[in-house]
Amino acid sequence: MIKKIQVCISPKLFNLYDDNNSIIVLVDIFRASSTICSAFENGVKEIIPVGSVQEAIKLKSKNKEFVLCGERDGKKVKNFDYGNSPIIFSKKIFVNKTVILTTTNGTKSIDIARKCKNIVIGSFLNITSLSNWLINQDKNIIILCAGWKGKFSLEDTLFAGNLSNILIKAEKHNYSLCDATINSIYLWNFAKKDKSIFLKENASHYDRLKKNHNDDINFCLKDDISTKIPIVSNKSIKLLRNV
Amino acid sequence: MIKKIQVCISPKLFNLYDDNNSIIVLVDIFRASSTICSAFENGVKEIIPVGSVQEAIKLKSKNKEFVLCGERDGKKVKNFDYGNSPIIFSKKIFVNKTVILTTTNGTKSIDIARKCKNIVIGSFLNITSLSNWLINQDKNIIILCAGWKGKFSLEDTLFAGNLSNILIKAEKHNYSLCDATINSIYLWNFAKKDKSIFLKENASHYDRLKKNHNDDINFCLKDDISTKIPIVSNKSIKLLRNV
Repeated sequence: MIKKIQVCISPKLFNLYDDNNSIIVLVDIFRASSTICSAFENGVKEIIPVGSVQEAIKLKSKNKEFVLCGERDGKKVKNFDYGNSPIIFSKKIFVNKTVILTTTNGTKSIDIARKCKNIVIGSFLNITSLSNWLINQDKNIIILCAGWKGKFSLEDTLFAGNLSNILIKAEKHNYSLCDATINSIYLWNFAKKDKSIFLKENASHYDRLKKNHNDDINFCLKDDISTKIPIVSNKSIKLLRNV
Repeated sequence: MIKKIQVCISPKLFNLYDDNNSIIVLVDIFRASSTICSAFENGVKEIIPVGSVQEAIKLKSKNKEFVLCGERDGKKVKNFDYGNSPIIFSKKIFVNKTVILTTTNGTKSIDIARKCKNIVIGSFLNITSLSNWLINQDKNIIILCAGWKGKFSLEDTLFAGNLSNILIKAEKHNYSLCDATINSIYLWNFAKKDKSIFLKENASHYDRLKKNHNDDINFCLKDDISTKIPIVSNKSIKLLRNV
């Protein structure tokens, strides 16, 4: 069987790729998908992603025990418990908790993809574990990049290239690649020597975050600090093995 | 003044970039923008781009002297005079004629961008002339790639990278680049040694066209066979100097 690996560079193009038989890998390196991976690595039980701030506040008001996290334009939303930093989840208060999360780009793309059956969360933090799992699935793969407000982002494309490269090199399947996937692999091959330096020199979102979130950026670019694969299930994100 | 160079990789994202003060460079390397450049180089007076086959037929029925050209999915539309090959315009019958043109991707993106003031047509065929003109304009630049049915295309991205690279190296302005522009420049720097081989090995649209349109592909990848710059003006495309 020839498996397709497609990269969708913006949630706004996802209707062109929409396919109930593919596995969707949701990516928002800076920072939602990295934050979600970090949260599960640190013992969070469940994350409820919501598209809007209003929806998040409403959900919290009905469930006082939930932890309310989120950002808009990189900044913690006023009156929220926490922002969207992947580092905060090392706090023990998160263990076994349900988190409500809303972000500028990442949780919106979860909303857009939600009608699909198979949606997992990818980041550099869980890339090896995720790719090992994907290699053993007999499905096509769509890597959905959150981008920045609908536009192309270098960090999400780099991840797409890294993941595609790992899948192809495993040689378990024959793959058919779309133009966006091929582009991402070329970019990854160029940047892989030091992805931090590449993004520091080039990525606009790095520029937006570096002033207040330099520690977050460095954390999001770590490889394989987690073996866990978050999966979107009905209205929330859980761990793959628990679904 | 710092000038922005942005690359919009799909007409479906153009509303995110929409800006009446920028110059829009429309690109559909395989084949609409190359065909339009070739047509003007060979003496066509005016091209009326239309989004749908129906609209094209209606316009022809009212103007029997117009030449009706167009394709869908790479094939000449039934009952049209010609398809979308840039080579056909070497025929002398086109001199001083008005052409109606509809294509799968290219003319649709003209339709989408039409509300903007400044839209020019770019291809490898006129890249030096176009870049010399752009360097002397004090406006931001948006390179709008037609892509393939809304998706990312390697050939349009390569052109965007080539054009951006020329503009930056001219050093007449300081430029601010978005992530998609930076991506296109990295891709171009990788592929520039031989763009034909790069696209032959990688581009899905090359695969679609190579069986019946190999001569067109080779023609579309030629540099600087024209010094002319087509510009969208009201309902039609004319030559820049005539507008």
